[in-house]
Amino acid sequence: MSQYWSKIVHELTPYVPGEQPKLQNLVKLNTNENPYGPSPKVIAALQAEAADSLRLYPDPDSSRLKAALAEYHGLQANQVFVGNGSDEVLAHVFQALLKHDLPLLFPDISYSFYPVYCGLYGIHFETVALNAQFEVAIGDYLRPNGGIIFPNPNAPTGIPLPLSEIERLLAHNTQSVVVVDEAYVDFGTESAVALIHRYPNLLVTHTYSKSRSLAGLRVGYALGNAALIEALIRVKDSFNSYPIDRFAEAGAIAALQDEAYFQQTRQQVITSRTSLVSALEALGFEVLPSGANFIFTRHPAYVGEQLAAGLRERAVIVRHFKKPARISDFLRITIGNESQNQALMQAIRALVQA
Amino acid sequence: MSQYWSKIVHELTPYVPGEQPKLQNLVKLNTNENPYGPSPKVIAALQAEAADSLRLYPDPDSSRLKAALAEYHGLQANQVFVGNGSDEVLAHVFQALLKHDLPLLFPDISYSFYPVYCGLYGIHFETVALNAQFEVAIGDYLRPNGGIIFPNPNAPTGIPLPLSEIERLLAHNTQSVVVVDEAYVDFGTESAVALIHRYPNLLVTHTYSKSRSLAGLRVGYALGNAALIEALIRVKDSFNSYPIDRFAEAGAIAALQDEAYFQQTRQQVITSRTSLVSALEALGFEVLPSGANFIFTRHPAYVGEQLAAGLRERAVIVRHFKKPARISDFLRITIGNESQNQALMQAIRALVQA
Repeated sequence: MSQYWSKIVHELTPYVPGEQPKLQNLVKLNTNENPYGPSPKVIAALQAEAADSLRLYPDPDSSRLKAALAEYHGLQANQVFVGNGSDEVLAHVFQALLKHDLPLLFPDISYSFYPVYCGLYGIHFETVALNAQFEVAIGDYLRPNGGIIFPNPNAPTGIPLPLSEIERLLAHNTQSVVVVDEAYVDFGTESAVALIHRYPNLLVTHTYSKSRSLAGLRVGYALGNAALIEALIRVKDSFNSYPIDRFAEAGAIAALQDEAYFQQTRQQVITSRTSLVSALEALGFEVLPSGANFIFTRHPAYVGEQLAAGLRERAVIVRHFKKPARISDFLRITIGNESQNQALMQAIRALVQA
Repeated sequence: MSQYWSKIVHELTPYVPGEQPKLQNLVKLNTNENPYGPSPKVIAALQAEAADSLRLYPDPDSSRLKAALAEYHGLQANQVFVGNGSDEVLAHVFQALLKHDLPLLFPDISYSFYPVYCGLYGIHFETVALNAQFEVAIGDYLRPNGGIIFPNPNAPTGIPLPLSEIERLLAHNTQSVVVVDEAYVDFGTESAVALIHRYPNLLVTHTYSKSRSLAGLRVGYALGNAALIEALIRVKDSFNSYPIDRFAEAGAIAALQDEAYFQQTRQQVITSRTSLVSALEALGFEVLPSGANFIFTRHPAYVGEQLAAGLRERAVIVRHFKKPARISDFLRITIGNESQNQALMQAIRALVQA
């Protein structure tokens, strides 16, 4: 606390990301990174950027990247916004599109950065409880609001919502922006991007940190009607002219150009997830249906916090949330590669059979 | 304009950065980039980052970079904040430290992003006129305020303020934060960093985009008392957990490790500036005293906008500000390498002798 702080700083409760351990040799299944590295073509494109041209600013508009994303998604360049990771994109979305007199709505169990953004920008919000099956129940969102945001698939549950449910929401909710945060969509969830042509209040956000294996590069983007994108650009240009560095733009473009690698690695993750779910269920675990590169699971006979601690003693780190109580026995486990998943199951068998 | 926009978006006047032309073969002296590329050791460090490890998030705290900067500047790691370019650092500074009931003060002719940040965060500000010699006059800032910020050397004038004047300000102004924006300090201006030990309300910001030749990488930082830094961290952790990507951290650390290259290139720029000033003065130009990698100059017989347009026709781009009227005949010209400076002078001679 300091007399020099702006008032808002005293009131903030910052987001706490999953641990990025300094230790080597941990089986790291706690922050939903991809077990496979980026495409070799991406690596080559990035190496080419390490050059004298770094003395020059990047393109402040990231025009080439926006054009490539627009083409990839069948949209126009003015329907694309890019940022320094989807967290930055979301921050601008909250400030530019979700601050209104009526409350913003989002699930009570969801990405825990949402209430943090509300604190930063003074946004009034109300949470909507997941139903008994831990699902986002669209019917509960059909009421006056200043905006709606949820991940699809939801996090940390991993449960996907069918596109028909999202369209039902959009058909009813025309007076405020609906943001579908599709950070994990490429692992078996239906994308809402095709609905952008019909619903001017739909914004969809994506990230390169998961299915594109580029968490270390920091690229995220939003897709939507040009008027929504313009609001984001106005805020971005009042915050930082050049959020996308030369590596980020070049790497992100190259990743879009290697569709075969993208399809192969995301399918490998989906296949591994199926095997992992079977192995856990055989040990008596309950696993929520997942359309993501992670699963959310609990065992009826064990305490979640103790399982997480036991795994860590065996050099496997997963994510555990103490709150709310309803999910405190769950573990969120990232889908690893074959050897990581084997190490995970070996550690779990030692704990659950002990 | 859109019903979906938050109220603030309607009121924003975004910052307009200098042009980043898509054309090749222009002599680009408009955005104060370094004419010399980054150190070969930086290039090597960046190439090594183009690897499988990009699938993993970077360190959210950029601990290694903070430690390296702290050691370089004789400070502790908790006295260092890093961001995605100094523009992002400044954005967080405005939100975290400069929003108070009393008005923020900054020069009327200065970095034109300052009033934009005030618009984004609803900060009440008053500008203080430069004196007749276009200098920041510290005596005019000795009045009640909610914070003070100015670049040293100032931009776009380039005029440096002596350290004794900054200390005079700090000795009088103890109730609010004083931010010295040292983006251009390495080109012949005295740094205020050493005063951090004695003044808990002093914050100094630096960038890698100028003297470190890394505008394309996006790294900036702030140095100050740990309580000021904590406010910035709280805002950053409520905005984006991972603003510094793996390339940015590795490249910034490597740049600090090649002190010889840094000293050599900044001296080359200073030497070139001296020659350029002489050449311009020989043609009748007035050049303000510069402690930066650019000069601010006018010719008593020519209109600034026409000179800028004439240079552009000759493939040389410089920065011209239409407003305020007091500086509308000036050109802001980045110091280039020998061949760029020769091309500039050739184009100027064609215009001024025509």
